[in-house]
Amino acid sequence: MKKKKIRSNDAHILALAALMEGSGSILYEEADLLAYDCDGFTVHRKLPRAVVFPKDAEEVAKVVRYCAKHNLPFLARGAGTGLSGGAIPLNNEVIISLVRMKRLVSVDLENRQAVVEPGFINLKLTNSIADKGYYYAPDPSSQYCCTIGGNVAENAGGAHCLKYGVTTNHILALEVVLPNGEIITIGGEGILDTPGYDLLGLLTGSEGTLGIVTKITVRILKNPEAKQTVLAYFDHVSDGSQAVSDIISAGIVPAALEMMDKIAIEGVEAAAFPVGHPKDIEAVLLIEVDGISAGIEEQIEEILAVCRRHHVREVKVAKDEQERASWWANRKTGFGAMGAISPDYLVQDGVIPRSKLPEVLERINEISKRYELRIANIFHAGDGNLHPLILFDMAKLGETDRALKAGSECLQVCADVGGTITGEHGVGIEKKEEMKFVFTDEEILAQTNIREVFNPENLLNAGKLFPSPSRCAEVKRDLKDKQTVARP
Amino acid sequence: MKKKKIRSNDAHILALAALMEGSGSILYEEADLLAYDCDGFTVHRKLPRAVVFPKDAEEVAKVVRYCAKHNLPFLARGAGTGLSGGAIPLNNEVIISLVRMKRLVSVDLENRQAVVEPGFINLKLTNSIADKGYYYAPDPSSQYCCTIGGNVAENAGGAHCLKYGVTTNHILALEVVLPNGEIITIGGEGILDTPGYDLLGLLTGSEGTLGIVTKITVRILKNPEAKQTVLAYFDHVSDGSQAVSDIISAGIVPAALEMMDKIAIEGVEAAAFPVGHPKDIEAVLLIEVDGISAGIEEQIEEILAVCRRHHVREVKVAKDEQERASWWANRKTGFGAMGAISPDYLVQDGVIPRSKLPEVLERINEISKRYELRIANIFHAGDGNLHPLILFDMAKLGETDRALKAGSECLQVCADVGGTITGEHGVGIEKKEEMKFVFTDEEILAQTNIREVFNPENLLNAGKLFPSPSRCAEVKRDLKDKQTVARP
Repeated sequence: MKKKKIRSNDAHILALAALMEGSGSILYEEADLLAYDCDGFTVHRKLPRAVVFPKDAEEVAKVVRYCAKHNLPFLARGAGTGLSGGAIPLNNEVIISLVRMKRLVSVDLENRQAVVEPGFINLKLTNSIADKGYYYAPDPSSQYCCTIGGNVAENAGGAHCLKYGVTTNHILALEVVLPNGEIITIGGEGILDTPGYDLLGLLTGSEGTLGIVTKITVRILKNPEAKQTVLAYFDHVSDGSQAVSDIISAGIVPAALEMMDKIAIEGVEAAAFPVGHPKDIEAVLLIEVDGISAGIEEQIEEILAVCRRHHVREVKVAKDEQERASWWANRKTGFGAMGAISPDYLVQDGVIPRSKLPEVLERINEISKRYELRIANIFHAGDGNLHPLILFDMAKLGETDRALKAGSECLQVCADVGGTITGEHGVGIEKKEEMKFVFTDEEILAQTNIREVFNPENLLNAGKLFPSPSRCAEVKRDLKDKQTVARP
Repeated sequence: MKKKKIRSNDAHILALAALMEGSGSILYEEADLLAYDCDGFTVHRKLPRAVVFPKDAEEVAKVVRYCAKHNLPFLARGAGTGLSGGAIPLNNEVIISLVRMKRLVSVDLENRQAVVEPGFINLKLTNSIADKGYYYAPDPSSQYCCTIGGNVAENAGGAHCLKYGVTTNHILALEVVLPNGEIITIGGEGILDTPGYDLLGLLTGSEGTLGIVTKITVRILKNPEAKQTVLAYFDHVSDGSQAVSDIISAGIVPAALEMMDKIAIEGVEAAAFPVGHPKDIEAVLLIEVDGISAGIEEQIEEILAVCRRHHVREVKVAKDEQERASWWANRKTGFGAMGAISPDYLVQDGVIPRSKLPEVLERINEISKRYELRIANIFHAGDGNLHPLILFDMAKLGETDRALKAGSECLQVCADVGGTITGEHGVGIEKKEEMKFVFTDEEILAQTNIREVFNPENLLNAGKLFPSPSRCAEVKRDLKDKQTVARP
């Protein structure tokens, strides 16, 4: 491909362009960069220095080596759907976009694995192997557009993670460009427990701060023989919540077990895929079981019995795949649907022990009143992952700030009851100060020390994941005096 | 408890004794130390400086801080059943034995978790909760005597890990004494994906080189409603092997899927729990399925059909729990049973893609002939974890050395076919040079750099897990010159 003439006064832009093959592989003009000033966390924006589009790991490594040599901050970006700001160029970074590296490299049905490049779209993997009877399990709601590389960075979850686990449970090997430009491979194909330290687990969910993933070997699963889906409407949240506990206690492991509250229902019913949920109920449960055909019916019967025991107002079993799909489409519009009932919204992402839901919802309700902001709740009830959705209006003075504070208080509530501050969206810039709700200084230091091993100059995605640098440096200095794990 | 008078010329022994509460909390006389000169890997022995028996995390931390201050090598030990030498005091270490810390701290059935101290015996956990209908899944063959702390260090597996995963999949949180004496808690109870780096995964399976675990929160599971077990005898290994592949391809996930070859059968039939396996067959499969009752029968039918398709000579379904238990007792004597047919034996622990089994067995057979040593094979066939058992006689000059070399060659075969050098026994001292079969210098460096963060003076369990220090230092220096992840 012929190279387009680059016009810039920035010598680094010219040099980076020269490293990349083909035209259209670098953006550097302000009008182009505007699309890269934030990700799915839109309340903070900053322009990158440039955006490069490498075609393979070697080109990624060339850019990384250049940045390392010239002390230029850089970070990797997938589809930019992240919800915690992990891809926002806080330091005017060179963004390494991985969207051109979007090949499905290979599929190995016999050993149940596939190799993809990081820019490959999550849902495309399932679509590519569906006709052979296989699928890729992690299913974030953004799966129609988010990339598997981004899923690895955030250790993304999804509605079906209750039974099948989050992204880290499906990653077998990674090719990674380290912040010094070296390329290493970690993990092993089809191996449960590889020798040495678990770098695979360490890199997965490290939010783009330890290296840039350039190839991913994932586990693929055989489609379950059968699945069945139930909708259950409850007049009281506490009844719905108790039904969740009892389903799990009965030894059933549903593929998914979702809950939405009254305001969330108002949202999804006003959005693209309404299904006629009653508007006067406090909670709807969406429950799915899958597996071999033989056991499904018994599990559904038991689920219905549990729901009835807890005063369910109405309960429905999906009569066909079309109805099932409509219920899921309705649920998966959840976050976006808030746009139908509010100018802006902030998604939070806490984790709580399932049994604490009624107490937590009461406290969130109190936060909502105190900040005078409506808060909807969508809940991966089976695994305790709660998404409070704080509705606000950026155009109103001070309301963004109030929404952020209300969100932070919701996370404090989650931490207070023994939960944590993120289930699947990551910490990014959004929740880095909230890390202190759940980690001691020593525990944060143990983590930042690991970052230094991989990323000693902190050029890669700086200012993310951990409390702000100055604070961190203080912690470190303090602890060094006390003879800690800080390096001698 | 009154302190016993300690008589020693070693000031460190006196000081360590003074740190510990109660008599009998330190051993230092040679006669006592002899029991601690090796673990389950018996071909290498060395005496420790002393063995201390702390009663809680605070006493562990006191000992660690003392050792760190006085530059004394130290390591932690559980039941000493490890098979790769991870608890051998290569450097005359102070051994911190965790056997006194053996409490079951708490059981929380509602949230499906239990908290144990590291010296708690694996099988005792299941026994403690069995009457409530729960169990702890990881089941190494040594589970009647090995400790959960040791299981965490080695990321231990077991026959039922095919369906339920290895130890790391069942650990929710750890309290850890770091090599500087600090106590931190990592992970979160009941949380799938905690914020920040995955230190929990990193510590689990780090073979006692990053810290000493003093409290463990594990996931407990509800007993399956039903289980059913099958024995299948094959005249040809290739048929047995193909049956394994076809069972997995059929979408069945057995709870366990074990294979033993002819020599292994000879061993288990000569040991404590013979069950009458025919002696002229090449392979026996032990297959177990569990889950809700409704589906079990269909799965067993399908398994029997697969076996028949591959010319099974005879196939039996366990007629009751007693017969099932006898089959498992027979299988679980596997390693020890070798003692019935050979003076000594060396257990190896490779992983291979399931489909490569016939080829690998042929190459192991060739190694057996070349070294003139019989080799039995026990195989967690479902997940490709192969245990060649090399039979030898220590009393014969040079035979130990030949057995070690033959074992190393078996691992090379595993690496050659795309597998790896340990599935569940760890690297320890036994396989540290073999790490080079599967890792590049850069990949080993990325790991030793992490060790330095936690264990900068390398006082904790030095000389384990990675190729020998001199070699490592060279690698590091080399790479530093080439601008690597080595710290500036």
